[in-house]
Amino acid sequence: MGIYLTVDIGGTRIRAATFSRDSIQPIEHHRASTRVQEGTAFDHIVTFIESIWPEKDKVEAIAVALPGPLDPRTGTILLAPNIPEWEDFPLGPKLVSHFNVPVYIGNDANLAALGEWRYGAGRGHHNLVYLTISTGVGGGVIINDQLLQGERGLGAELGHVTLQKDGPLCSCGQPGHLEAFASGTAIARYANEQMAAGVKSSLKPGPGLTAEEITRAAEQGDILASDALHRAGEYLGIAVANFLHIFNPSAVIFGGGVSRSGSLLFDPLEQTLRKRIFRSKYLDNLTVITAELGDDAGLMGALAWALHNQPN
Amino acid sequence: MGIYLTVDIGGTRIRAATFSRDSIQPIEHHRASTRVQEGTAFDHIVTFIESIWPEKDKVEAIAVALPGPLDPRTGTILLAPNIPEWEDFPLGPKLVSHFNVPVYIGNDANLAALGEWRYGAGRGHHNLVYLTISTGVGGGVIINDQLLQGERGLGAELGHVTLQKDGPLCSCGQPGHLEAFASGTAIARYANEQMAAGVKSSLKPGPGLTAEEITRAAEQGDILASDALHRAGEYLGIAVANFLHIFNPSAVIFGGGVSRSGSLLFDPLEQTLRKRIFRSKYLDNLTVITAELGDDAGLMGALAWALHNQPN
Repeated sequence: MGIYLTVDIGGTRIRAATFSRDSIQPIEHHRASTRVQEGTAFDHIVTFIESIWPEKDKVEAIAVALPGPLDPRTGTILLAPNIPEWEDFPLGPKLVSHFNVPVYIGNDANLAALGEWRYGAGRGHHNLVYLTISTGVGGGVIINDQLLQGERGLGAELGHVTLQKDGPLCSCGQPGHLEAFASGTAIARYANEQMAAGVKSSLKPGPGLTAEEITRAAEQGDILASDALHRAGEYLGIAVANFLHIFNPSAVIFGGGVSRSGSLLFDPLEQTLRKRIFRSKYLDNLTVITAELGDDAGLMGALAWALHNQPN
Repeated sequence: MGIYLTVDIGGTRIRAATFSRDSIQPIEHHRASTRVQEGTAFDHIVTFIESIWPEKDKVEAIAVALPGPLDPRTGTILLAPNIPEWEDFPLGPKLVSHFNVPVYIGNDANLAALGEWRYGAGRGHHNLVYLTISTGVGGGVIINDQLLQGERGLGAELGHVTLQKDGPLCSCGQPGHLEAFASGTAIARYANEQMAAGVKSSLKPGPGLTAEEITRAAEQGDILASDALHRAGEYLGIAVANFLHIFNPSAVIFGGGVSRSGSLLFDPLEQTLRKRIFRSKYLDNLTVITAELGDDAGLMGALAWALHNQPN
């Protein structure tokens, strides 16, 4: 039986799973810390992949999801969070040399979009926009059943679009990006700023404040907490209107931890979207939904990516 | 010899041309007013097409470019400027019934992008963004040699993305769109507003003020005129940074009358783009150029669209 081995390299954890072509139930599933104990980061990944390598079955391909930026055509990592030695690092070619199987590498948010399209909330859609909202805001876009990548694999950076020329600074250093308004970090920053300015709240201010705590406080009636999520939802609504004007998809899918804030985020999002759309036709038959694959989005996306590249 | 008959229906003029498959030199080229003298707008278009219909040669297909919005899959016009009777009008199917040949319909800015990609400034590029700046701001996007259309053909409305949450109103009624900052109309509006606020200028204020006059005044040293173009260029730079983050193209092509303002517009555009790009990799091997097809962009784009749909 042909096996697909998928790896999801996150900032703190790496995960790997093996699949047969016909089932989305993993055969094996391993986890480890991203932190390298000894040797190089590449040795660490190789050892981890070897730990899940099937004893008997043939591995058809390895697919790797990383936060990027990376060039999926060449398999080169441009930068990897928490792995400083992987700057302009040819991870794909090096894994090919070592394991002697095809290797497909992709941006984790892009691959999560592909995973949702093939296995999750986006099944049956040909054009969809996926946004993952957690520490940052990542994106992935399917156009006519194809993954949007761009010339060098750097496309679909949907968190890094300007909504306000002189808005708050994004993690990337630029002003007014969607991520600077709607990420978990941005929501907590706004709540902290408001408390520093004297707004009363049950929240505990400080750098450790999370969007999850803010959601819980809002559910218990905290006005500032509710306002912080409302504001993020509004900016997401403006951004989604833009993405509808640009891509005219039939589905918008939200993943990431912050998307679990539910109606506190999505009610203002949908209200703003309705107000900001420039023709109502964009909303006809549009589905706005949360992702289905959860923590497995990276691994399932990598599986979808391998099968996308090996269609037969 | 198989003939392709292309039609470009603008707000004031309609144009048509006939082409053989192998040459971009039109065999015939006709023009008329869009205004209907008698009968229906459809009769008017049919008569116009008949006027250029070849006597001997077989017509392989008709391709029609219109300002949209329209659904290229069904050939239905949702709205046509200056032709109020064409609301939800099945132009494609009606032309097919009348002429008994395949008919392909597309948004004129989208088709101009396709024309530039096939015949003009975008030759050899696989991923490009096209912006046409005149009365409004239109867009077209080529991704992996395919035209971005979206689920119902309403994609690539690049003039209708929000750059400033509470910015000036766009022609579509929404605040802060690119078109509200960078179209010819927006440039003239800004100059008029500044003069009304007491800024001195050689320009003649009033509703007739055009971007062309503003360009001429700027070339002769008028500070306000220069400032008005500079401001438009800055917002275009922010928008182009967004489009690079979204599409990662290898070319950005500018068409439309306002793009003839030259360095008055493009110097601030490029400076802002460099400042606003969130990773310099997006600028590697990027070409920012003006369109080559000029007034024929619609007709050539329609030809490209017909051949795109009839590849053999």
